[in-house]
Amino acid sequence: MNRTTRLNAAFNPSSVAIAGVGPVTAGKWYLDSLLSSGFKGPIYPIHPNGGEASGLKVYASIRDIPGLVDYVICCIPARLVPQLIRDCAEKGVKVVSLFTSGFSETGTDEGKRLEAKIVRLAGAGGTRLIGPNCMGVYSPSSGLSFVSDFPREAGGVALVCQSGGNTIYFVRLAAERGIRFSKVISYGNACDVNESDMFEYLAEDAETDLVAAYIEGVKDGGRFLRTLAGLASRKPVMVLKGGSTGLGARTAASHSGSLSGSDAVWTSLLQQNGVIRVHTLEELVDMVVTFRFLRLPRGRRIAMVGGGGGASVLATDACAASGFALPAIPPALAERIRGFLDSDAGLILTNPIELNMFPEVTYNIARNFIAGEMFDLMLANCVFGQHPWPVFDIWSDLFCDTILKVHHETDKPAAVVLDSDLSNQEGHFAALRQRYCAAGLPVYYSTANACKAVDRFIGYHKRAGGPKQTE
Amino acid sequence: MNRTTRLNAAFNPSSVAIAGVGPVTAGKWYLDSLLSSGFKGPIYPIHPNGGEASGLKVYASIRDIPGLVDYVICCIPARLVPQLIRDCAEKGVKVVSLFTSGFSETGTDEGKRLEAKIVRLAGAGGTRLIGPNCMGVYSPSSGLSFVSDFPREAGGVALVCQSGGNTIYFVRLAAERGIRFSKVISYGNACDVNESDMFEYLAEDAETDLVAAYIEGVKDGGRFLRTLAGLASRKPVMVLKGGSTGLGARTAASHSGSLSGSDAVWTSLLQQNGVIRVHTLEELVDMVVTFRFLRLPRGRRIAMVGGGGGASVLATDACAASGFALPAIPPALAERIRGFLDSDAGLILTNPIELNMFPEVTYNIARNFIAGEMFDLMLANCVFGQHPWPVFDIWSDLFCDTILKVHHETDKPAAVVLDSDLSNQEGHFAALRQRYCAAGLPVYYSTANACKAVDRFIGYHKRAGGPKQTE
Repeated sequence: MNRTTRLNAAFNPSSVAIAGVGPVTAGKWYLDSLLSSGFKGPIYPIHPNGGEASGLKVYASIRDIPGLVDYVICCIPARLVPQLIRDCAEKGVKVVSLFTSGFSETGTDEGKRLEAKIVRLAGAGGTRLIGPNCMGVYSPSSGLSFVSDFPREAGGVALVCQSGGNTIYFVRLAAERGIRFSKVISYGNACDVNESDMFEYLAEDAETDLVAAYIEGVKDGGRFLRTLAGLASRKPVMVLKGGSTGLGARTAASHSGSLSGSDAVWTSLLQQNGVIRVHTLEELVDMVVTFRFLRLPRGRRIAMVGGGGGASVLATDACAASGFALPAIPPALAERIRGFLDSDAGLILTNPIELNMFPEVTYNIARNFIAGEMFDLMLANCVFGQHPWPVFDIWSDLFCDTILKVHHETDKPAAVVLDSDLSNQEGHFAALRQRYCAAGLPVYYSTANACKAVDRFIGYHKRAGGPKQTE
Repeated sequence: MNRTTRLNAAFNPSSVAIAGVGPVTAGKWYLDSLLSSGFKGPIYPIHPNGGEASGLKVYASIRDIPGLVDYVICCIPARLVPQLIRDCAEKGVKVVSLFTSGFSETGTDEGKRLEAKIVRLAGAGGTRLIGPNCMGVYSPSSGLSFVSDFPREAGGVALVCQSGGNTIYFVRLAAERGIRFSKVISYGNACDVNESDMFEYLAEDAETDLVAAYIEGVKDGGRFLRTLAGLASRKPVMVLKGGSTGLGARTAASHSGSLSGSDAVWTSLLQQNGVIRVHTLEELVDMVVTFRFLRLPRGRRIAMVGGGGGASVLATDACAASGFALPAIPPALAERIRGFLDSDAGLILTNPIELNMFPEVTYNIARNFIAGEMFDLMLANCVFGQHPWPVFDIWSDLFCDTILKVHHETDKPAAVVLDSDLSNQEGHFAALRQRYCAAGLPVYYSTANACKAVDRFIGYHKRAGGPKQTE
């Protein structure tokens, strides 16, 4: 059994044990998350006191477990970990994921020694280690999760993430926008399994179409480059580098014990390999959403539909700042559209075009506008909070009806902006987002974010020799 | 009575009439908003059909109203507006605010002629016009509002805004973050009352401490420069210029009939007058929040407290990118802080510092850390969505307790980042924001936004010759 086959057991284990399942502990939370995420195989809680946890028998030691154990989640104090690793090796455990912290990330000699020791013990026993100081694995097709609100449904996006907190936040942010995952790993200190292992693994993984990564630092630069290049030549890769500034690098060192490396080097190596670089988690989600849901536009000419003059002015500025065009509506098309309008409606017949409250008028306008041959992309701009009166919910629902109908009837690439930081409209906001996502549309939270993401998406395909761009 | 005195009637009217109060009309919504915002004087709805609206007698014409009318909100079709203006002049109305659109913003000769006509009629009668194509005035100290969810409480911030939708969105965004307003005006096409009138008025207004503005274009550049310089020499001014790109300018022309002017000219004239320029509504809120709630830091050295290693790495990168320092914790201070810690707690003893779940420990750490003489600003970083298990609500409440307690006990400037785009945590998010705002703290939605705002704030005071900055 080679190292990659063993790593595979972390994503598709036949059985899982959790060490450190006392009451009100991380171990107990891991157990409950696993129970709620639909894992099919046996689950073995471990704690010296034995007893029961969430209805399952608790074993005093891994040695007492009757069946085979593929994968162990370790939540016991650092000083007890070496003995657990010895026991795991003896038991034939393929992978141990260590939530436990207190190793090299402390910067102390003691922590570093302890980490070296468990690496030695695991290596001798043929057990692979994830972490320490990490959340471990989320693999929905196996029913494996460490957070109970992650989606149970699987999808084509993989996440390789050095931070547990960033893993969790990213999955939640992306899930709200319709993204589903193949494999997610939070790998912390990377004492054994690291980003390069995962890049190799995911390049071959048939369930994974694209890979997002948050990396604080790498230890073997040569291998990193080879595996990244190999992965990026087969699948889109987008990277958020943590510790890109000198100060951030110092923080990264104390977080995951990472050496961040020069930012200029990162910039050039990512660029050379066609890897998309982003600077925030939100941008990382924007890119993943774009690659999953946007059809490649043939050019940069946007047809924007929305409501509100001032919102349209600012949205237009944002499009222009990212190098997009908003061609004016040609006279013949304007004439056709004007035919649908009550002359007193006060709509602004330009691009961006405003949609009003009358479903049929709105549909006819949008349908004719969007289908116009001079546009490459429909951008639907739904700005919350701009409307003074209780008609907003109605308007935004009608607007959504129209956009979805037009989207189904045309093959024009389409993107949606739902702009709101207002807490008091969050319920309706979430419902609308759900409708757009269910229709397979990419949703963004500002026009500027949408334009930046689409710009990078077009750039990626241009470099990769995709369909010819007009204009 | 001079022009400014008349303008004052829009913010402090003794009586208001609303023209166009039919069922399910903008006029009816204006009426209901006014009724719910606590206006003390008489309110006169007008509609040719008469009858009743929201319990008030509806007058067939303004001429039939028995008492004096200071301020009229006009929601009738454009073609009927000239007669209304004639009637208003006769009645001695001081200001008419025109929600009605269909004037110069249409770009048609007819629309321009109609606008010129009402300006002529109003001028002859001594009536001032706000708009057309605008929302009008929100003046909480007079109980005057056009949106029922705007705060009834007044405050020191004025907003001068050419877009009705942007006015509404801005007030709501700012209100959620603790901002209260003196005078807000949405002035649309600016056929009479314009940004320069408002700058003059607000420079003298004792209730206004700072002025935010959204401007698409100005007609009299010379007067604009004079009034802006006059205002900016007395109060902080921050401007969002809509139509800053060529494309955006075209959209602005069709929105409010504005000539946007060269962006380079705007940049230089704003800079020369010490006006802060922003590029999004969110940035405009960030700046207003900063000027209202942040004590001026003496330098750029941040003490950051928060939770989560990966979140801290990205937050540190954001601080560094805006030119802030995060000095390492000196050995003596580290020793003192270590004294409060259980050695197994696994906290990262650096800057940013992590706070755990034990209130007393957390308080002692934060108190000693923040009070350190090598820091100029406390930045509390509360990242939602990073926590895997149901302890997050508890953690974020404890964290808030600690931050508020330390804030009250030290005179260190303090800012709070509440980072969340997650809909499912919105309720708790809003509750926490409310707690921080009630304590008078500036709240931001990302570290990058906080740092950009504080950087501009420090820059403003440096230019103005504020307290000497260290480092």
